[in-house]
Amino acid sequence: MSTQLFSHINTYVSINNEDFEGISSFFEFQNVSKKKTLMEAGTSCAYNYFVLQGCLHMYYTNEKGMERTVQFAIDNWWMTDCLAYLKRTRTDFNIQASEDTKLLSISFEKQEQLLKAFPQLERYFRIMYQIGYGASIMKMKYLFDFSKEEIYLHFTEHYPDFAQRVPQYLIASFLGLTPEYVSEIRAKKRS
Amino acid sequence: MSTQLFSHINTYVSINNEDFEGISSFFEFQNVSKKKTLMEAGTSCAYNYFVLQGCLHMYYTNEKGMERTVQFAIDNWWMTDCLAYLKRTRTDFNIQASEDTKLLSISFEKQEQLLKAFPQLERYFRIMYQIGYGASIMKMKYLFDFSKEEIYLHFTEHYPDFAQRVPQYLIASFLGLTPEYVSEIRAKKRS
Repeated sequence: MSTQLFSHINTYVSINNEDFEGISSFFEFQNVSKKKTLMEAGTSCAYNYFVLQGCLHMYYTNEKGMERTVQFAIDNWWMTDCLAYLKRTRTDFNIQASEDTKLLSISFEKQEQLLKAFPQLERYFRIMYQIGYGASIMKMKYLFDFSKEEIYLHFTEHYPDFAQRVPQYLIASFLGLTPEYVSEIRAKKRS
Repeated sequence: MSTQLFSHINTYVSINNEDFEGISSFFEFQNVSKKKTLMEAGTSCAYNYFVLQGCLHMYYTNEKGMERTVQFAIDNWWMTDCLAYLKRTRTDFNIQASEDTKLLSISFEKQEQLLKAFPQLERYFRIMYQIGYGASIMKMKYLFDFSKEEIYLHFTEHYPDFAQRVPQYLIASFLGLTPEYVSEIRAKKRS
């Protein structure tokens, strides 16, 4: 089992090697190919994912059949529909691999057992959700306030890792832009 | 000290009366008047607020001088700029009382001490942030997908408590609508 999750947890709370041996037994390693769907809209949201290497995106399909991305996760990020996961309900979202991805998955039941066995991880997950919540409030501010061009430029400047790795059509769907519009801005930027 | 926070915590984790006596000693009760500013953009984000009775809103002022609301908190909700609070940085947002409000406040330092003394509260705050994060992802879905009229109708239908209590201009600024537009929809709905 990768020690990447061990290092990531240790950035926020203190665990030792022995703890981590116990902790890792709750997770399953998965190697998923690009385009593989991990969670499907309309089904129960049963798993939480930690990306070791690769990229996932969470999206829904609107009434016009357009896909809209609401979240990305690259290396060292968690991803699930966190409300449906908490409330044990069906999800409105899909999670798909944006590229070939190595990840750790944990079911809701296992995560509850993990938190009982290692209650210090409550702090770790509290901080993860606190960061996610804060970031999504900031995103709302940008969506409200920036022009379409500013949204794109802000994103590529502040998140170069995402901008380079994630296909252009997914960035467009995350920022509420059309792929054509993103091509236009990129052409303008190069010229 | 109100037992309201005691009940709220007990909905998510188990604490007894003796624990709660200790827990409440970390909080300060405040009675704030409508329009009172609790946190100001450009200053450090030092407090977390739990609304006992009343309503707070968090907003920023954009370059055009327009106020945009990004969050509300009514009875039993927490409010702060959770990223700035976590990272001990200046905030871009203001928190103001939308009506006369009774609340409990806790500083960052005290909250860290509280979590050390009562680590079972990490679970409570983890769930609070998980709900907040999940709700803001859902809001993004609505903002992307609904027409302006649908956004307003969805909000008033799903959050009647907010819709009745919160002044119309604040609901407009939360939903990204102009107050004039909200008046129009309301007139249309009545007719």
